[in-house]
Amino acid sequence: MTEATVMRMAELARRSGVSVPTIKYYMRQGLLQPGRRTSVNQAEYDHRHLDRLRLIRALTSVAGLPLSKVREVVDAVSGESTVIDAMAVTQDVLTGTITDEGAGTSEILDRVISQRGWRCARSSPAYQAAAGAVTQLHAEELTTVLDHLDGYAEAAEMVGRADLEAIEDAESLEQRIRGVVLGSVLRRPLLEALVLLAQQHFAQNVRDSGES
Amino acid sequence: MTEATVMRMAELARRSGVSVPTIKYYMRQGLLQPGRRTSVNQAEYDHRHLDRLRLIRALTSVAGLPLSKVREVVDAVSGESTVIDAMAVTQDVLTGTITDEGAGTSEILDRVISQRGWRCARSSPAYQAAAGAVTQLHAEELTTVLDHLDGYAEAAEMVGRADLEAIEDAESLEQRIRGVVLGSVLRRPLLEALVLLAQQHFAQNVRDSGES
Repeated sequence: MTEATVMRMAELARRSGVSVPTIKYYMRQGLLQPGRRTSVNQAEYDHRHLDRLRLIRALTSVAGLPLSKVREVVDAVSGESTVIDAMAVTQDVLTGTITDEGAGTSEILDRVISQRGWRCARSSPAYQAAAGAVTQLHAEELTTVLDHLDGYAEAAEMVGRADLEAIEDAESLEQRIRGVVLGSVLRRPLLEALVLLAQQHFAQNVRDSGES
Repeated sequence: MTEATVMRMAELARRSGVSVPTIKYYMRQGLLQPGRRTSVNQAEYDHRHLDRLRLIRALTSVAGLPLSKVREVVDAVSGESTVIDAMAVTQDVLTGTITDEGAGTSEILDRVISQRGWRCARSSPAYQAAAGAVTQLHAEELTTVLDHLDGYAEAAEMVGRADLEAIEDAESLEQRIRGVVLGSVLRRPLLEALVLLAQQHFAQNVRDSGES
């Protein structure tokens, strides 16, 4: 798959699933690096172009992000970024799709984070989203959910670990970040659907005990 | 809180957070049962009206559902429904907000369900949503996520159990269903934000091992 394949524009389009005009547009926008020119009107491309296009397609078609956000991620993987920097940018861009509300800090959240020994940034949109969700649960007086925060955090840890394991064999930073994007966007409905199925299962116990 | 409170319309509005005109509209629409008439132009209401209005507010303001969907849930809690029937209707209504795509059946999903011993309905939108997510992961060639399906299912089980524990002290079917609605809608961003925080934590290990 990732041997040093050299290809023309047409093949790049076919393999990436992105049309030739769109590829040219990305190139003019600086989102895709130019190919290696072989004559006046021909150039060749390699697996790095393919990786980049697949990443862009994941960000646009699957995650539904605007090009301004795509650029943030592309800039992060193009520079001297470490995995963690590129992941942080990607997370921040994706978190915007969960909630736009921030909520300062949350004591109950800080307690859980410290209990689990998570090293994570309070300044990140992810922390802000979590604190915002805690605030909203308080506002709706659904504090029984917060009583189970430890359990949710433990489950989240299993999910986060699996998310990273699922991308650890990726061969380039771009493939890995594409995995983060697709993993987050596509794994999210999967997890929620699994939760609903588990609820169905446990609801039957509720009925059983409720009738006794 | 739930002693047999009797109140006038103004207090019902104040305590439910729903305006008087909106309450009257819900009543005309048959979503809220009429009060007990005490004179030609006065009626009194009790905790059942309050429970119903809080449920409707959760479905509309928090879950963002249209009145046609609200009616499905209200009909389910008004009738002779058991908890499990009312929950099933509520789940189906909420699942529409995850995905509209169905995907028949999924072998890999069935295997996980049977391994965990979940009793759940293949015909439910929740199953369809899960099968749809599996299909989309296949389509994007992100099968490494599916390799971790067992882990995701285990985490989902913890979440689903906590979700139901969080509502088990509810004193009426309406309170419980309100808990399901708010739990699903507000717990969802909380869990995803926690997953992002866990990812932040584990990403640091990725960097560490990547640099060695």
